[in-house]
Amino acid sequence: MARKSDLKAKTKKLKGKVRTLRAKLEGAAKPDAGVKKAKAANPVSPLAPKGGFPALPAIAGVEFASAEAGVRYKGRTDVMLVRLAPGTAIAGAFTRSSTRAACVHDCQAKLALKAGPQDGAAILVNSGNANAFTGFLGQESVNAISGGLADALGLPASRVFTSSTGVIGEPLPHDRITAKLPDLKAALSADGIEAAARAIMTTDTFAKGAAAEVDGDGGKICIAGIAKGSGMIAPDMATMLVYIFTDAAIPAAGLQKMVGRLVDETFNAITVDSDTSTSDALIVAATGQSKAAPIGDLRAKPAKAFEAALRDVMMDLAHQVVKDGEGATKFVEVRVTGASDTDNARKIALAIANSPLVKTAIAGEDANWGRIVMAIGKSGGVAERDRIAIRFGDILVAENGWRSPDYSEADTSAYMKGEELLIHVDLGLGKASKSVWTCDLTHRYIDINADYRS
Amino acid sequence: MARKSDLKAKTKKLKGKVRTLRAKLEGAAKPDAGVKKAKAANPVSPLAPKGGFPALPAIAGVEFASAEAGVRYKGRTDVMLVRLAPGTAIAGAFTRSSTRAACVHDCQAKLALKAGPQDGAAILVNSGNANAFTGFLGQESVNAISGGLADALGLPASRVFTSSTGVIGEPLPHDRITAKLPDLKAALSADGIEAAARAIMTTDTFAKGAAAEVDGDGGKICIAGIAKGSGMIAPDMATMLVYIFTDAAIPAAGLQKMVGRLVDETFNAITVDSDTSTSDALIVAATGQSKAAPIGDLRAKPAKAFEAALRDVMMDLAHQVVKDGEGATKFVEVRVTGASDTDNARKIALAIANSPLVKTAIAGEDANWGRIVMAIGKSGGVAERDRIAIRFGDILVAENGWRSPDYSEADTSAYMKGEELLIHVDLGLGKASKSVWTCDLTHRYIDINADYRS
Repeated sequence: MARKSDLKAKTKKLKGKVRTLRAKLEGAAKPDAGVKKAKAANPVSPLAPKGGFPALPAIAGVEFASAEAGVRYKGRTDVMLVRLAPGTAIAGAFTRSSTRAACVHDCQAKLALKAGPQDGAAILVNSGNANAFTGFLGQESVNAISGGLADALGLPASRVFTSSTGVIGEPLPHDRITAKLPDLKAALSADGIEAAARAIMTTDTFAKGAAAEVDGDGGKICIAGIAKGSGMIAPDMATMLVYIFTDAAIPAAGLQKMVGRLVDETFNAITVDSDTSTSDALIVAATGQSKAAPIGDLRAKPAKAFEAALRDVMMDLAHQVVKDGEGATKFVEVRVTGASDTDNARKIALAIANSPLVKTAIAGEDANWGRIVMAIGKSGGVAERDRIAIRFGDILVAENGWRSPDYSEADTSAYMKGEELLIHVDLGLGKASKSVWTCDLTHRYIDINADYRS
Repeated sequence: MARKSDLKAKTKKLKGKVRTLRAKLEGAAKPDAGVKKAKAANPVSPLAPKGGFPALPAIAGVEFASAEAGVRYKGRTDVMLVRLAPGTAIAGAFTRSSTRAACVHDCQAKLALKAGPQDGAAILVNSGNANAFTGFLGQESVNAISGGLADALGLPASRVFTSSTGVIGEPLPHDRITAKLPDLKAALSADGIEAAARAIMTTDTFAKGAAAEVDGDGGKICIAGIAKGSGMIAPDMATMLVYIFTDAAIPAAGLQKMVGRLVDETFNAITVDSDTSTSDALIVAATGQSKAAPIGDLRAKPAKAFEAALRDVMMDLAHQVVKDGEGATKFVEVRVTGASDTDNARKIALAIANSPLVKTAIAGEDANWGRIVMAIGKSGGVAERDRIAIRFGDILVAENGWRSPDYSEADTSAYMKGEELLIHVDLGLGKASKSVWTCDLTHRYIDINADYRS
């Protein structure tokens, strides 16, 4: 029989449970309430890497600093500075948006210039304001920051690269950033990369980092990178920024060639909601301070090994961006094989990955392969209905123009409950293939984006 | 001090509360539970025409019937039959999906044939099953229905047009339809159009009809049309079916030319969620029984007047489809003017209308013009940042590459609370323009589409 003290304890516990559940229910019922709470709590994505931010190696020739400039946010860092040693080679990839931000135009112009062999370089990034659609003020802000930093660090202004992410259409209060340059310079250190990754978050729910090592010819080559994605609670737009550092010795032209190739199969192969930011930027900096021999011929073995490691880091960061996609609860690879060429494979993969009907079905854990058929059909990519085979994971659901005779609703439904899913479409036409990665479309995406700008 | 029996009672009560709250929370968290409630209620779209289904004129030479065949739904009509008098000219427009349904392929093949001058025709449409991705069984079902109806009505099978809408990938139980052909034939009447419009609904929240009259040369010409759209609660896919009838005398070739022109600015200019159905079909039938003189030269005044009236009916039905878009609470025109050519205007208008970020901002009544800038940028259409002007209704929000100096957040926020909105982008480059119509993206869209197929 229960004792009075036990009952008392039980009653207290149950009261607490009622309170918790009531609060949860309120949050679930009212989208607004959910958002406001989310803003306060900002819960980490269920798809975040389980171990937290990874241990990244220090890269010889690279120093980091971050600061609270109060561009828009209070009580958190919002500026990161990276100083790159003389001799660093830099490559980049940027959004092709026709309304891209002033800092993106500026980076593209500067990367087109030839750097002196002993020029150093710097990267400065602020969160809270995208400096996009800010007219002539946009370039003025970029000039103020680049000029100030060039003076402070003794660099040509043409070697200062800036990015901005946050609200669109508000002039950037760049004075708040230039006022912090002395502090930033003083704080530069080789091990500030995690803090830097945090400073460039807007409302990402976790900081994103990845690293790789390669055995170079005569020494180790290290690669470390950080990214910010689109785990936004209130801002105006998903924006993606990526910075990767390596001590490899490789000329800028060769590095740029590699980055161009790799960006296609990594960052250009992810989509959260089909909306392209005005600020997307990827910068890869190679300091050349590794003991390994310089990488020359891009077809030789050392170059191939380095490129494979760089690809791993880029892919890892790209996947982390999807895993922090707004409202994401599922991480999905859409793999199209058997296509007549890569363009058609990409068209069809993206049509599936961007289809709101496919993405909501995934959110509902519904093996709704009819919507995959629909997306293939609307894509504009070459497909022949009766040659298509569709699989969820290894489960064949449709082939020969209709549902597979072995199709089991129970098996596919069980598969759809997983956190990481594969949708595999074989077109049966040729040998080309393409994978893209995406997430599901949930109520939380609406909560986040139907909210007022704040 | 609490007594033991009191405490016991309290504990029991609290346990009950915890159970209730847990159940509620589960319901709120799982789209299923929400959807089931919605299924029962199936509330009419807030954007539905206030007066209900319009009074449509009888069209001489056109008879309608509907029946309960039990294809998938119980307790409601799901088949409509239209009989068209000998001499009727028919034109059509169909989805370009590469995975389109068997009945769509069949209609396209039949419309390519030349009809005899005294051939009658018939249209049979079922809801509940799309007969899409059903392999060779698809055409078999079409043949069974067309053949049966041709026998019953004394028509060549090549003049029987069928459509199917509903779940994808399930063989169509066409026996249930052919069993109803005698009943359908017996029920044919000139005034069954509203019942026919109801029979083809899947989970549309209202039946869609529109009409127009033209003063022809020597008599009145009447046009009446019906459509089904995408107000789905559980089916697999948005599908759009449209049937328009007129007593005008116009050869099929001329009618087809007009329909091809008009479909571009009406049905091809609407988007609910960017997902294209495998079943979309528009059929226009002209019986020639009006007393007005036949329409010959398409550039002459009578043809122009008829085309304008046909356009009105098509536009009205197209807008009704958007107003019954899944989860819609706002009806939005995206108007792009000042474009270098129509293709660029269309690209940009569609990028805005299909952007999940723009659509969620509208749902949140947020005048988030930064997202319009983003969508213009990502569209691939020709735009120059500093020449763009953006208006919500008449309110200028941005021009000259940044926010308008007169911008008032209060005024634009008040405007966004309206039910019908205009987003107007002037590119300042040329004279081409394009309007598309869309709706917002709300929680209800997720509720409807994250549900299991049922």
